[in-house]
Amino acid sequence: MTYYRHHVFFCTNARDDGRQSCDQCGAQEMRNHLKQRAKALGLTGPGGVQISTAGCLGRCELGPVVVVYPEGVWYTFVDQEDIEEILQSHLLAGKHVKRLKLPG
Amino acid sequence: MTYYRHHVFFCTNARDDGRQSCDQCGAQEMRNHLKQRAKALGLTGPGGVQISTAGCLGRCELGPVVVVYPEGVWYTFVDQEDIEEILQSHLLAGKHVKRLKLPG
Repeated sequence: MTYYRHHVFFCTNARDDGRQSCDQCGAQEMRNHLKQRAKALGLTGPGGVQISTAGCLGRCELGPVVVVYPEGVWYTFVDQEDIEEILQSHLLAGKHVKRLKLPG
Repeated sequence: MTYYRHHVFFCTNARDDGRQSCDQCGAQEMRNHLKQRAKALGLTGPGGVQISTAGCLGRCELGPVVVVYPEGVWYTFVDQEDIEEILQSHLLAGKHVKRLKLPG
């Protein structure tokens, strides 16, 4: 068993080389939103859910990206509805969100 | 199988509330060092090793902390020798470094 049941990392990297970066796509705002929601539902802390920001996750071309460990499931997202679905389906019910899932 | 064989996250968070933060302990420098070493050894990329920075990982009192997923192994570190041991032992040989390992 891992320290957190689900550890979610939002790439909030801002590239300066002209390539698309997750930061441009509202990643920080969506991370703050998910953190707030997880707290409100009492999911955070050891044995629960941790929501962290991260630097480059190396998958810029598919961004914005988020990865959930230890299962290693990658998602993209557009808006708060997508984030809510990841929360309700994956983090709460353990069911991956196929429509947002990235390969690998 | 996860997209990366090992995904390493260094907490580089700087707290502004007076509590110890990983950022004060050379976390960014150590992350850059490990990234450079992993690149030099040809370990990076899909199927290999990814070294990312991260915001708060929620274990400030044990910092500086680093977590390796998908296995969910947590370490602390002091210097480049510790980082090299994590690289050689854990990332290359798959053997956890007991003397640096954190509980959970």
